[in-house]
Amino acid sequence: MDFTSENTAPVHPAIVDAVVKANTGFALNFEQEDWTRAMTATLRRVFGHDELAAFPVVTGTAANAVALGAMARPYEAILCHWDAHIETDEGGAPEMYTAGARQIGISGGHGKVDPAALARFLRNSRFGNVHAVQPAVLSLTNLTEAGTAYSSGEVAELCALAHEYGLKVHMDGARFANALAARQEDAGRMSWRAGVDVLSLGTTKSGTFGAEVIVSFDPALAREIAFMRKRGGHFVPKSRFVSAQIGAYFQDDLWLANARHANHCARLLAQGLSTVRGIELVHPVDGNEVFAAMPDVVVEGLMKQGYRFHKNWRSDPVQHRFVLSWASDPEEVSRLVQDCARLAG
Amino acid sequence: MDFTSENTAPVHPAIVDAVVKANTGFALNFEQEDWTRAMTATLRRVFGHDELAAFPVVTGTAANAVALGAMARPYEAILCHWDAHIETDEGGAPEMYTAGARQIGISGGHGKVDPAALARFLRNSRFGNVHAVQPAVLSLTNLTEAGTAYSSGEVAELCALAHEYGLKVHMDGARFANALAARQEDAGRMSWRAGVDVLSLGTTKSGTFGAEVIVSFDPALAREIAFMRKRGGHFVPKSRFVSAQIGAYFQDDLWLANARHANHCARLLAQGLSTVRGIELVHPVDGNEVFAAMPDVVVEGLMKQGYRFHKNWRSDPVQHRFVLSWASDPEEVSRLVQDCARLAG
Amino acid sequence: MDFTSENTAPVHPAIVDAVVKANTGFALNFEQEDWTRAMTATLRRVFGHDELAAFPVVTGTAANAVALGAMARPYEAILCHWDAHIETDEGGAPEMYTAGARQIGISGGHGKVDPAALARFLRNSRFGNVHAVQPAVLSLTNLTEAGTAYSSGEVAELCALAHEYGLKVHMDGARFANALAARQEDAGRMSWRAGVDVLSLGTTKSGTFGAEVIVSFDPALAREIAFMRKRGGHFVPKSRFVSAQIGAYFQDDLWLANARHANHCARLLAQGLSTVRGIELVHPVDGNEVFAAMPDVVVEGLMKQGYRFHKNWRSDPVQHRFVLSWASDPEEVSRLVQDCARLAG
Amino acid sequence: MDFTSENTAPVHPAIVDAVVKANTGFALNFEQEDWTRAMTATLRRVFGHDELAAFPVVTGTAANAVALGAMARPYEAILCHWDAHIETDEGGAPEMYTAGARQIGISGGHGKVDPAALARFLRNSRFGNVHAVQPAVLSLTNLTEAGTAYSSGEVAELCALAHEYGLKVHMDGARFANALAARQEDAGRMSWRAGVDVLSLGTTKSGTFGAEVIVSFDPALAREIAFMRKRGGHFVPKSRFVSAQIGAYFQDDLWLANARHANHCARLLAQGLSTVRGIELVHPVDGNEVFAAMPDVVVEGLMKQGYRFHKNWRSDPVQHRFVLSWASDPEEVSRLVQDCARLAG
Repeated sequence: MDFTSENTAPVHPAIVDAVVKANTGFALNFEQEDWTRAMTATLRRVFGHDELAAFPVVTGTAANAVALGAMARPYEAILCHWDAHIETDEGGAPEMYTAGARQIGISGGHGKVDPAALARFLRNSRFGNVHAVQPAVLSLTNLTEAGTAYSSGEVAELCALAHEYGLKVHMDGARFANALAARQEDAGRMSWRAGVDVLSLGTTKSGTFGAEVIVSFDPALAREIAFMRKRGGHFVPKSRFVSAQIGAYFQDDLWLANARHANHCARLLAQGLSTVRGIELVHPVDGNEVFAAMPDVVVEGLMKQGYRFHKNWRSDPVQHRFVLSWASDPEEVSRLVQDCARLAG
Repeated sequence: MDFTSENTAPVHPAIVDAVVKANTGFALNFEQEDWTRAMTATLRRVFGHDELAAFPVVTGTAANAVALGAMARPYEAILCHWDAHIETDEGGAPEMYTAGARQIGISGGHGKVDPAALARFLRNSRFGNVHAVQPAVLSLTNLTEAGTAYSSGEVAELCALAHEYGLKVHMDGARFANALAARQEDAGRMSWRAGVDVLSLGTTKSGTFGAEVIVSFDPALAREIAFMRKRGGHFVPKSRFVSAQIGAYFQDDLWLANARHANHCARLLAQGLSTVRGIELVHPVDGNEVFAAMPDVVVEGLMKQGYRFHKNWRSDPVQHRFVLSWASDPEEVSRLVQDCARLAG
Repeated sequence: MDFTSENTAPVHPAIVDAVVKANTGFALNFEQEDWTRAMTATLRRVFGHDELAAFPVVTGTAANAVALGAMARPYEAILCHWDAHIETDEGGAPEMYTAGARQIGISGGHGKVDPAALARFLRNSRFGNVHAVQPAVLSLTNLTEAGTAYSSGEVAELCALAHEYGLKVHMDGARFANALAARQEDAGRMSWRAGVDVLSLGTTKSGTFGAEVIVSFDPALAREIAFMRKRGGHFVPKSRFVSAQIGAYFQDDLWLANARHANHCARLLAQGLSTVRGIELVHPVDGNEVFAAMPDVVVEGLMKQGYRFHKNWRSDPVQHRFVLSWASDPEEVSRLVQDCARLAG
Repeated sequence: MDFTSENTAPVHPAIVDAVVKANTGFALNFEQEDWTRAMTATLRRVFGHDELAAFPVVTGTAANAVALGAMARPYEAILCHWDAHIETDEGGAPEMYTAGARQIGISGGHGKVDPAALARFLRNSRFGNVHAVQPAVLSLTNLTEAGTAYSSGEVAELCALAHEYGLKVHMDGARFANALAARQEDAGRMSWRAGVDVLSLGTTKSGTFGAEVIVSFDPALAREIAFMRKRGGHFVPKSRFVSAQIGAYFQDDLWLANARHANHCARLLAQGLSTVRGIELVHPVDGNEVFAAMPDVVVEGLMKQGYRFHKNWRSDPVQHRFVLSWASDPEEVSRLVQDCARLAG
């Protein structure tokens, strides 16, 4: 009955097994062991890119902030959707890692950066003028914070625009698997082939204890990321236990299976809620998140019954967020829909 | 045969069990669950301090840097032994979290800050003069980086001196358990009762996957730490799995048992090596680290046999470091001594 | 024929005289001389505040950024009008001095923060939530960047709102004299009596070589400002020559006389332009700036004749800025109006 | 009778004239005027370098910190003599502009970096190791803080060593003219021809109101410097008045004449003091500074007579600093020597 966040779900048994199995005797620390080597090899295969560099960290905030810290100078700016996680929920971490680069919100419907808005902004930017912060990075989130998924074509269009003005592109992929599942798309095509330079790839929300990986497709940025990661305190000594999680996450396409299940449950919930009187979906449901406008009587009723979800998303009095995960139970989803229907009267 | 670092050792089975057991169904994220509450209660009991605040993170660098970031303003300075970990091995993390506060090395034998050197430095500091960075924090390491242990009396003397000049005191306790075991001392007396304001308490080196906890005895600093931790990307979403490790670490005094074992093994090694011709111990062995000056023939022989240890500590051509842990095998220690003796000829 | 900025105007003769006269023999450096002491005494009299502390610097960007650096912690936020100079034209300086605090733009007509918009923002702010940057400072600009002047009552209303939520208030007073002249208001009532904690008071735009002064009405912030100013490289060694400028600026109310003249010239221009066909004033003209939407034919004609002004203000294709100063010649203003009328046909 | 610092001396009349003459009518701001263009042309001629870029600022701290901010990444280190001004007297400004790069003191006699000590440090540096801050800049001070002058050969030797390890070289030339005069050396040979990449060239100590210029011989660093300067609040709007000072400073070799006079007075003082019983010179007197160990009775006697000088240099109870400048009067120097002799008894 918990729909608050993927992070309230348990860890997937396959991940638990992998960590327990990695605990065999002594192993070198600081990524000089086999688990990390294997993880990098796996990622190169998954993304079809022989030279990518992979840097595990244990929070999504770190994955984003370390990447951005390597990509932007202090007097530069990071363009992102105004609703992006780096803008709303990371306590200023990107500003810390960039030593003060500015985040500038670009508009667009349902969490996606609007190419026309981005083009307009870039056209009017005062490049080369020292009085103005200099746009240097475009950060896209896929799944977006509104639960929608960019197609690889949409990503490519935005990347081309960014590159035209000399910006690099970062992708916050905390729910990258859900985006791939939503779009039935390939990892490489959704990232570097579309023009993404650095991807912050999450696994925590899809079943690990806590493991995110900064994937750099740009060899020149790898050195920066390595030093910035250590400097931020994110270079984990007993690295095998983090890399082992990431390895297991990709093993036998567990990541995609988990994402498909979560997306499926979300679709169930969305279809159910859309039939309830007085409830309206706020955004298209591409992935594993459902944003719904609900009557107070329903919200209060659900809470009384012990349902957990994110009330008043973005301080909105009528909007609430439900997140589904690999551990969601379709029957519980059905019960939630029925309870909503009953409460709505 | 691995004596490189405690971080190459496996995780203690009790910790593994605790993490696996914590994986039961859904639980709130971001420390709003029972494991974290229990952890704080445990720490309050262990330290005999009802108002301490505890902030888990997953690396020692983060535990130090976040604490210091809360304690020093950018134009201030942190005094520490010139050989402290924050000075030598954290890639500038304290500078990042303090936005540029300076670390100033104080001298002293065997890794301990010399009270006379500290007093002299403070007496000559230009307090209130804007041209000079302002000493604001004394950071002590216990165990020191030389493997020696301050007594609580030594800590108290240094704290009193620091407080006299208005400085706050931080303790890097990556090996705090080993220091307590070495000095047969109580946690409270070694920290806040001696004058320590914030303790970065390690558990990773003594048997967990990766869990350190910033213990603030100063309520005014707690808010700073909370915000700085998030801002650094160190607020772990699935917090139960970190707090569960810390809980198990203190359960039935596992921490002290582990530390005593590691210290015991180090003593065995030290006693053995001190009888070998041509080998000299560089520092007194209070805890679980042995620093030895060794003939090249011994070093090369050990490496050929597959022994792992930290060669050329601090770029010193003749000094090498051996670290013992909860997982060290006394028989392997004996074999190491015998091999040294044989190689020394 | 130069209406680009007050900074293209010459320095007022009384200021030149004061600087030349200060060059008499040796004098202590770093503000331990009489000119700085006199300057502080003058400011205390002008503002009717016996304990204000005054910190001269030589650019407006420094006056704002140093002040904000003392007022906000890195994880906090500064609220300002979206069109404020600190947001648009200081190359990220506030982010540098605050080590990454975020600036958040609040809306409002004609450059003024709308109290309702501010109240709404504060009401929805997640105070105490580590995931969100914490609003800590309200920065008001008077004259605003749109050339309008807050009344002291409007300032007081906004300050009260800010203080209610625990924020401190900064005022960017690069054109403070023009605002006082516009509102026929007293310096104290427009600043600390209305609730302003720190004022960045400009003199450069009103006739000095380059002298701004950070006026702190909050004794607790003075220490921070002193250290941050030095750390930013803004503590001028030969301080007498900066303080002498500020002293002369206030002598015999030169500042208000200069501001009244500039405002008067702007009013002349505004009245003239408002009679020209096809030209529209974009904002009310309270002070010394005129923002006008003009037909291209007029703009091109003026440029051909050698007029200088700020074309395409804020990248707007039709909006242009004309700034008047102490050195503006009313006859030139008349000629400009006539030329516009002629060109407009 | 003031020997505290060059900054207590008056401004040279030729500089005053130049500033007053620059105040003729309107002129573009932000270095888009003729004075700045002329200044750059002059510097290119003086240094014999057609592509140098010049960035005026108004304090020496800014000249150093902005340059270093452009040269070092946050995880890097700046090597300098332990007694360098950036280390001892700039309130942490280099740490601010570099966002936390560390300054590491290298030893050497009389204020000069010892090439052997530098070589040893570089040899032992852990380049490429993320746990260690990475040496990236060597900063030399000429005149040194001990008043000695490097020869261009000594500079070239240190630069070659630095470049061999991939470091860039910065020179703090707050007293660059005094160093050239001391060594009868050419500006180009003492800087870029010897391997210096960026020079912070002072004029304030030699007769201007407040004007320093960052001279970049490395085109790639110019962009960084330009943005960092603005971001630090050091891009002066009424730029003509700063550039005019620098122009006049080089006119007819005024800078070298001033430096020669100051050096000459220092030599007079040094020769005089060296004959006084109980007084010892601490360092060779190459330039315009005299460091003397003096009996207390002499120090107290001088102060009673109203002499001003820097007592207890570097907190040393017996060492005191006397600085000579363009405005020093040789007769006053003689009187000072006589008074010392008389007081020494």
